[in-house]
Amino acid sequence: MKEVLPLKIKIGNKNVLYPMPVTVVGAMVNGRPNFIAIAHVGILTRHQPHLISLSMSKMHYTNAGIKETKTFSINLMSVENMVPADYVGTFSGKAVDKSQVFEVFYGELKTAPIIAGCPLSMECKLYDVYELPQFDVFIGEIVETYADKNVLTDGKVDLSKVNPLLFDMTGIQYWSIGKAAGKCWNIGRQYGKSE
Amino acid sequence: MKEVLPLKIKIGNKNVLYPMPVTVVGAMVNGRPNFIAIAHVGILTRHQPHLISLSMSKMHYTNAGIKETKTFSINLMSVENMVPADYVGTFSGKAVDKSQVFEVFYGELKTAPIIAGCPLSMECKLYDVYELPQFDVFIGEIVETYADKNVLTDGKVDLSKVNPLLFDMTGIQYWSIGKAAGKCWNIGRQYGKSE
Repeated sequence: MKEVLPLKIKIGNKNVLYPMPVTVVGAMVNGRPNFIAIAHVGILTRHQPHLISLSMSKMHYTNAGIKETKTFSINLMSVENMVPADYVGTFSGKAVDKSQVFEVFYGELKTAPIIAGCPLSMECKLYDVYELPQFDVFIGEIVETYADKNVLTDGKVDLSKVNPLLFDMTGIQYWSIGKAAGKCWNIGRQYGKSE
Repeated sequence: MKEVLPLKIKIGNKNVLYPMPVTVVGAMVNGRPNFIAIAHVGILTRHQPHLISLSMSKMHYTNAGIKETKTFSINLMSVENMVPADYVGTFSGKAVDKSQVFEVFYGELKTAPIIAGCPLSMECKLYDVYELPQFDVFIGEIVETYADKNVLTDGKVDLSKVNPLLFDMTGIQYWSIGKAAGKCWNIGRQYGKSE
């Protein structure tokens, strides 16, 4: 073993891939809008079709609605949305009616309730379900994205205005973002130059 | 349409699921360690087996190594790792030898190079490949997680010490995290109480 290893501790086969952006997924379930907070998300492509994954326990109430309507929305939460986002992530639609928690509108798919009071929403149709023993991994194809005017700068999404809510299951904490740290596919050109 | 809609702008079917944590994936390719920055990641389960997805264009050099050895590491980058992380995300292993960019060690799988100088690493075996037209979505099962002593508080991962590097493709920027914003599955209990 190398000398670096005294600094390393094995902590078991834990998932430490955090923070992740907090989304609230909207879907029609039994004829009314339902919402669930999902941060166990993923990006599956970089080009068209734009595909996103949502890992949802088969226990959840919302899964049947996604399977039935084959449409849903993925709504990004800002820090300002933290209380209702956590609420719809804590209480099941089996126990409480969450249809009134967010004001919604409908886009071209007609059956995906989209949250009005959040910075960014992706309207999705169901592309596939990747089945795992306890989880439905819903794969959504983005058909339209809705941005709040207030989060755009020169027509582009400005993350400092989005103020995204981030999820950390290692510490059971939400976080905000901090400072911009550098330009992607650019700052790496410094590698090796100052050494 | 509801009155909220004047505030909403359709921006096309864009993926806006950001920021995402920056990882550097380590794998043996043609007999030597290779590294590639991947932030198009995902969490697929919440229990055992812990499964994580990596979306990697079929053009990448690393894919063949993952398929051959069926092992890889997912290393979380801190803001301090930004320059080498961006370097291995900018230049292909087809063009440059990236085997010396990071100091590595090997864990129980023997063939997954794990980065010593980063806060957290997950050693993975290949669970499945979800094939998409232009992308291999590698699904890894975490077999061991290595934490730098300096990022633990009372034996638990402390995100403020990890200082994770975050990726935003809407703005082509890296970001740091800011302040803790609230407790998960707790702050939502305030919903409706102050209204």
